[in-house]
Amino acid sequence: MKKLINSPDTVVVDALRGMVAAHPSELSVDLDQRIVYRGTPKEQGKVALVSGGGSGHEPLHGGFVGLGMLDAACAGEVFTSPVPDQIMAATTAADRGAGVLHVVKNYTGDVMNFEMAAELANAESGIEVASVVTNDDVAVEDSSFTAGRRGVGVTVLLEKIAGAAAEEGLPLAEVAEIATRVNAQGRSMGMALTSGTVPANGKPSFELGAQEMEIGIGIHGEPGRHREALAPASEIAKRLVEPVLEELPGDGEVLAFLNGMGGSPLLELYIMYDEVAKLLDQAGVKVARSLVGDYITSLDMAGCSLTLLRLDEDLTRFWDAPVNTPGLRKGI
Amino acid sequence: MKKLINSPDTVVVDALRGMVAAHPSELSVDLDQRIVYRGTPKEQGKVALVSGGGSGHEPLHGGFVGLGMLDAACAGEVFTSPVPDQIMAATTAADRGAGVLHVVKNYTGDVMNFEMAAELANAESGIEVASVVTNDDVAVEDSSFTAGRRGVGVTVLLEKIAGAAAEEGLPLAEVAEIATRVNAQGRSMGMALTSGTVPANGKPSFELGAQEMEIGIGIHGEPGRHREALAPASEIAKRLVEPVLEELPGDGEVLAFLNGMGGSPLLELYIMYDEVAKLLDQAGVKVARSLVGDYITSLDMAGCSLTLLRLDEDLTRFWDAPVNTPGLRKGI
Repeated sequence: MKKLINSPDTVVVDALRGMVAAHPSELSVDLDQRIVYRGTPKEQGKVALVSGGGSGHEPLHGGFVGLGMLDAACAGEVFTSPVPDQIMAATTAADRGAGVLHVVKNYTGDVMNFEMAAELANAESGIEVASVVTNDDVAVEDSSFTAGRRGVGVTVLLEKIAGAAAEEGLPLAEVAEIATRVNAQGRSMGMALTSGTVPANGKPSFELGAQEMEIGIGIHGEPGRHREALAPASEIAKRLVEPVLEELPGDGEVLAFLNGMGGSPLLELYIMYDEVAKLLDQAGVKVARSLVGDYITSLDMAGCSLTLLRLDEDLTRFWDAPVNTPGLRKGI
Repeated sequence: MKKLINSPDTVVVDALRGMVAAHPSELSVDLDQRIVYRGTPKEQGKVALVSGGGSGHEPLHGGFVGLGMLDAACAGEVFTSPVPDQIMAATTAADRGAGVLHVVKNYTGDVMNFEMAAELANAESGIEVASVVTNDDVAVEDSSFTAGRRGVGVTVLLEKIAGAAAEEGLPLAEVAEIATRVNAQGRSMGMALTSGTVPANGKPSFELGAQEMEIGIGIHGEPGRHREALAPASEIAKRLVEPVLEELPGDGEVLAFLNGMGGSPLLELYIMYDEVAKLLDQAGVKVARSLVGDYITSLDMAGCSLTLLRLDEDLTRFWDAPVNTPGLRKGI
């Protein structure tokens, strides 16, 4: 295993320390609880967004803490859910008197632990918590980490869009409705050329042949739909666009999000995006907004995922709203 | 070779097409000449910045075209200089009547071709061109691509800082002076865990053993100072910080830039940044600004580089100025 780490045991806390060192005025971090907070909390009376999950998907979630997105993010061990106490602490600290939205990816541990934390925060501090569970991955029903569909790329878009709704001062029920709508209107599909390596395991999570790729892979390297021979970008794009379009509800404009899995260079992501854009054009789907880059990764896995989100007036407006986080910034 | 590409022959043009598809209002592209321009040119009467170089270092340079940075970027083949005609076309199109600054990394082909283009643009169109050649890499004197020192991470900082000076309306001589100062006050050192793979070659550019790393590597995989056994992040940070500090001129605050080479996940870059920050603190060097992420890459090479820039009042102010490019955005 070749990694820029000190020890597999300290990966998460070392990275959190580096993150706050790199963004000292933007973020603060509770290293004991492994929670990233905004450097300056938002105003009282606005809904707070709390998310989190296993580490290894950076910039998700800690990198999305800041103006227009999250208020706090809980980091679990690599590919392991944060614990209820940790999530409760984040929820309590982030609350600004208007309730808290939990953004949870659909993995069994995450769902259970966020649910428990929500109940505890409500019972102990009277904080109103609403939750949205993302399950946008069309690749498989159920998998090694999940009952139902996995939560993947839509989580990034949801944190941005619901974050903007909260920043605007919408009440909890409305922020939760916007978040639920993003999940309902978004679909994703991923693929891998190589496996990532979990530091504590020291070897790749799975083996792919030198001329093989896996279609429908999860962000923890969970099995996808099938393996097949390596193909040109134009063919890979079809494997992603077709199943996503098949399940995408509604009609009208979309946001197209081509996400890198951590080990693929930007040059290749742009090549993939070009192929995706051509296919969407051929299918008569108008791309109104787009995002290309590494936003929800799987350590050093080479590969990419496509998320399409059917836009409406609200979602577009909140997508276009200001955002200023280490992982996602809008231009001035 | 496992890559998200269509063919090694079309990598550059496919990626440029994807780039403009992903940023349709921000960028325009001349696919024949392989030049990326701003979607909306800057006002007449301001200095234009033109850069470029071999592809494979994305987001450098095309991703830095936009408000507050470059006006045009010329993409060569992977790891190959753009040609004089291409650079001349970009220079002529980008000029807004106040002259053009060429930002050139110190590689033999780039230096020669930009020089020729500058002479041609001046002779044929009377455009005044100033040039700055970056040579911030302290690892080696001369290498397979260079006479003298290589231009690496400082190039990113220079494009940002000189870009802000141009945006503010400074005349060519002053923009060039700021650019020259950034190069003079910046030093870099890189390292690799694995080699990148040039698509046209189909195999890694060099071989490193499973427990080996290379210190002082160049952005084309050119040999560095030495190879040694893989070490913890804290040790790797010393190999970068010490030689950079040794050659860093002046005193006072620095900008610390921890750059990913393309194949290392953000989690690891933050771990590295944490170690770098500790060492700088121990050395009594105050970090006033920082940047962590993939900005000048080497395809899918795993590894990182450190650039330190000695700040002064001008450089800090221009660093803090607004910037809005696909590859680097400031918060609102």
